[in-house]
Amino acid sequence: MTTPLIIDTDPGVDDAFALALAAASPEVELLGVTTVFGNVPLADTTANALRLRALLGREDVPVAAGADRPLVHPQPHLSSAHGSDGLSGARGTLPEPTRAADPRDAVTLMRELLEAADRPVTIVPIGPLTNIALLLAAHPRLKAKIGRLVVMGGGVDVGNTTPSAEFNLWSDPEAARRVLVEEDVPTTLVPVDLTHRCAVGAGWLADLARTSATGAALVGLTGEYLATYRRILGLDGIVVHDAVAVAEAIRPGILATTAFAADLDCSFGPNRGALVVDRRREVERPPDLDVALDTDLDGLRSFLFERLSSLGGA
Amino acid sequence: MTTPLIIDTDPGVDDAFALALAAASPEVELLGVTTVFGNVPLADTTANALRLRALLGREDVPVAAGADRPLVHPQPHLSSAHGSDGLSGARGTLPEPTRAADPRDAVTLMRELLEAADRPVTIVPIGPLTNIALLLAAHPRLKAKIGRLVVMGGGVDVGNTTPSAEFNLWSDPEAARRVLVEEDVPTTLVPVDLTHRCAVGAGWLADLARTSATGAALVGLTGEYLATYRRILGLDGIVVHDAVAVAEAIRPGILATTAFAADLDCSFGPNRGALVVDRRREVERPPDLDVALDTDLDGLRSFLFERLSSLGGA
Amino acid sequence: MTTPLIIDTDPGVDDAFALALAAASPEVELLGVTTVFGNVPLADTTANALRLRALLGREDVPVAAGADRPLVHPQPHLSSAHGSDGLSGARGTLPEPTRAADPRDAVTLMRELLEAADRPVTIVPIGPLTNIALLLAAHPRLKAKIGRLVVMGGGVDVGNTTPSAEFNLWSDPEAARRVLVEEDVPTTLVPVDLTHRCAVGAGWLADLARTSATGAALVGLTGEYLATYRRILGLDGIVVHDAVAVAEAIRPGILATTAFAADLDCSFGPNRGALVVDRRREVERPPDLDVALDTDLDGLRSFLFERLSSLGGA
Amino acid sequence: MTTPLIIDTDPGVDDAFALALAAASPEVELLGVTTVFGNVPLADTTANALRLRALLGREDVPVAAGADRPLVHPQPHLSSAHGSDGLSGARGTLPEPTRAADPRDAVTLMRELLEAADRPVTIVPIGPLTNIALLLAAHPRLKAKIGRLVVMGGGVDVGNTTPSAEFNLWSDPEAARRVLVEEDVPTTLVPVDLTHRCAVGAGWLADLARTSATGAALVGLTGEYLATYRRILGLDGIVVHDAVAVAEAIRPGILATTAFAADLDCSFGPNRGALVVDRRREVERPPDLDVALDTDLDGLRSFLFERLSSLGGA
Repeated sequence: MTTPLIIDTDPGVDDAFALALAAASPEVELLGVTTVFGNVPLADTTANALRLRALLGREDVPVAAGADRPLVHPQPHLSSAHGSDGLSGARGTLPEPTRAADPRDAVTLMRELLEAADRPVTIVPIGPLTNIALLLAAHPRLKAKIGRLVVMGGGVDVGNTTPSAEFNLWSDPEAARRVLVEEDVPTTLVPVDLTHRCAVGAGWLADLARTSATGAALVGLTGEYLATYRRILGLDGIVVHDAVAVAEAIRPGILATTAFAADLDCSFGPNRGALVVDRRREVERPPDLDVALDTDLDGLRSFLFERLSSLGGA
Repeated sequence: MTTPLIIDTDPGVDDAFALALAAASPEVELLGVTTVFGNVPLADTTANALRLRALLGREDVPVAAGADRPLVHPQPHLSSAHGSDGLSGARGTLPEPTRAADPRDAVTLMRELLEAADRPVTIVPIGPLTNIALLLAAHPRLKAKIGRLVVMGGGVDVGNTTPSAEFNLWSDPEAARRVLVEEDVPTTLVPVDLTHRCAVGAGWLADLARTSATGAALVGLTGEYLATYRRILGLDGIVVHDAVAVAEAIRPGILATTAFAADLDCSFGPNRGALVVDRRREVERPPDLDVALDTDLDGLRSFLFERLSSLGGA
Repeated sequence: MTTPLIIDTDPGVDDAFALALAAASPEVELLGVTTVFGNVPLADTTANALRLRALLGREDVPVAAGADRPLVHPQPHLSSAHGSDGLSGARGTLPEPTRAADPRDAVTLMRELLEAADRPVTIVPIGPLTNIALLLAAHPRLKAKIGRLVVMGGGVDVGNTTPSAEFNLWSDPEAARRVLVEEDVPTTLVPVDLTHRCAVGAGWLADLARTSATGAALVGLTGEYLATYRRILGLDGIVVHDAVAVAEAIRPGILATTAFAADLDCSFGPNRGALVVDRRREVERPPDLDVALDTDLDGLRSFLFERLSSLGGA
Repeated sequence: MTTPLIIDTDPGVDDAFALALAAASPEVELLGVTTVFGNVPLADTTANALRLRALLGREDVPVAAGADRPLVHPQPHLSSAHGSDGLSGARGTLPEPTRAADPRDAVTLMRELLEAADRPVTIVPIGPLTNIALLLAAHPRLKAKIGRLVVMGGGVDVGNTTPSAEFNLWSDPEAARRVLVEEDVPTTLVPVDLTHRCAVGAGWLADLARTSATGAALVGLTGEYLATYRRILGLDGIVVHDAVAVAEAIRPGILATTAFAADLDCSFGPNRGALVVDRRREVERPPDLDVALDTDLDGLRSFLFERLSSLGGA
């Protein structure tokens, strides 16, 4: 039986790979996609999601726009990692959508999808956690319909946006704290410590581009993103953060997790937005956040390649 | 034409007076009541709201339970001002409800009431602002259906829970910041600076108790609350904070307001939860929060008495 | 018997009036002047103090340079209220000093003056509290030699640099907290609430300018400072904050004080640097900070005029 | 030529080993010892330092008491790691001092020792950084006399007192920020990441106890400290944090360092007191804090053993 899936996203180049992975995977049924501000403003992430849906031939899946800003404080700044339009400036290379965004807002779409679901739904938030915090806080009874959250975000030993904070959690620390610390929905967090190790190289991308028109279109979105990673990690390749989280949603257990007592820094000091995990032997609270810290790296890359190369297209 | 009204509340003794005032006022149509944690836990504020609805003979009005905690951080502590059950220990003196709480959660009830409304709705939040922040953030398009917020909360020159913070805003500073600073719905804030001045004396209460069974029942809820105000303000009477806000919702302009550029302190320092208003001549942002700082005190007390004494009952 | 006095200052136009007032007052013996960053950088406040000492004919009084920055965090920004050189651009109108700054640093000078004092010394800090915090924290036994601190700083109902914070305390909140909250030296705080009310008008200044060359020189420093107060308070005159504090040091009791339990906001929220006073009836700590909130305004202005007009000069 | 050395300390069991190491090392000349609150209150750390001086036969070295509390905020709590008296309850097993503490306070002693020094002095702070922050901030010109600071404190990937903060820095984050971030004295930081790896086992201690009366006396101080490390690290041995820092002061280069841009969290969130190091490839500030992250572990333990076993005694 397939796992029903909702992806909450701010595309973003790696979000594109994540959506493609979900579309290519028979284990899951993509119920809906919700968008959130993040790498670029909401209007852009929504436009990108609609174009990606068209590329993937999944115009049946509703796309609903959500939060255009964080829960409490203004967004500090956008990411520059994904280029001006969030897709390395290549949005225009994707097909025009034939269907508009859903008239419902993101929280309403998620609520209605959850209410209608006949089995536990997996939600995969791969942008700032604003929509998810709103869903859980406004409609607590719906938590019973959520099987699992697989969240891309956070850094255990390293940050990317600041020395200690990762972009998704840093973009809305208050929402992240609500979801990761205050709620008790079963959650797996996929931090940058692991996603960096799962980076795919330029050769992998070149091979993918040769498999199909869709593969080529995805790789065609990576130009400025490649330049970003060459600069910030010295890498000849890209980090597909969000696809790693979707992989875990599709194949639970493909990532190896460790449970920690965790907190999220909502102060206004240098660690704002940082995930705090307690690695001490004696902890003050039970370890209840599963953090993905390892995987079979080559196996994971092969899995991603196999699925993404199956997408077909002209 | 009546003004449609939603009251978001955490009863609370003064909340009881506020609900009674709304029920007694023909200018408004009470569409619904939503509850929130605050003076006492959510289960208690909801139970109190249901009993008060029964007392007021308004079992037609839906009561829906909302947030049981703040948006982001755990509630620091409950109020002790209203006694153990939130009604001076006198909940049991109120009639048993004949109808249960609405099955919908508070945000859903508000959303559906707003969607169905044919003219702008006034919302009067008189507890922590959690439900309202969730409503506005999750369903931004609904803001067009809200005519006005009249919020009881904050202190300009004085606090009650801390030296600078008032209980409602302090109970969920992040929600308060979202509603009062980040949103642009027309809002009037009724702070403790004014509500303290509108206090009603023991004689006023004794007179009210003589007007009807309902009046007597309301006054019967004030025992521990009177003791609180004797202790904290040296007052022989009570402060009916929330009724002052409802009065403004019923009779717009009964309170005199001043517009300020305002912020809400979400730090973890000594001013957490404090309202910050800029009284300088040169301000950095336009003054856009209307703060009620004055009224005809005797006129207001007369208005409250006239309405509450009209409630009848056996 | 005269009261020995140390002034810790960041001149600054009103600091100039404060130093002149001390020099003109037989009740006090000016032991030393220490400088601190503040209105302008340390090099400028020190240069200004040396010129003012020359103007006042008090080259016998040692001037020692102190902190060039706050205790913990970088200074957020300088004041623009006093013009580019801190004296309305008129430093060059003051006499060249004939004696350099003391080779000792400010803390060492204060320590040695205190050790040598045969009776309790009054210290009047009229800039950021960095030097004073360092003195008290590094040499706790010397507190026994300090009779009293009279500190210009803070706002009770209003700020100047931010909506809730006054410049001196805001410039080094950590130092201010150490001095005003953590230490137990008898302290009178003179906040902007009162100093604003003690403002002197353009006529008062014109009269002073006619009394002597020194009076004229002082008034000659007020050009840009007058413009500042016209802009920020709509005032045709200036606020001589620091002179009000020195007046209290000279004539203890000239200001009427109220004791409060107080704290200093060292968070990084909107109230950073704000004084917090507890005006509630029930307080958690004993009220131990004397805050000057009233005075005979005309009497004070007459006192200032009488003293400053006595300065003589060619 | 020997290196003149000042140790600023809050003994503490590992501080005892650190002092003994300095006393046993001919490469350094111990000019003075200053004490600070920390593991136990100042009165106890000073009493412990005096007893340890007597044990080590170095009554010629002045011991001066310094700060009894942090710079700005009250100390959150004492450590329980070292037992009630800071020496596993075994202070009484040490010889009575024959000489009292120096009448000067710690900052004055350090100032005078620095002023008198004919070559650069190494200061080794192994407690909260309060005294050092006061010294550097009050007497900036003396920095020219300091060759180097070797500071025990902080955690890069782990904390001990909280999930992310180490005890010394957490005890006075403001002082730590002043010293480690705002000052530019050449500094090597020795964090718990490394000191944990340098732990010595029960066998090592038993061997040391057999070498001399002094060795036995030192090992006699470790009872409760051993129990602490069994509990918190599952270790059959102790972590001699402070001795690792002193080893680097004695033999510069015995620890391998990496330079980082660093900050110190002075917020009131979950990371208060945490060291923040920027491990990203692109950093916003130049890396200027040398952090000791590696050493020849066996070589270091041998060095410690060789020196401590040379102490002699009856």
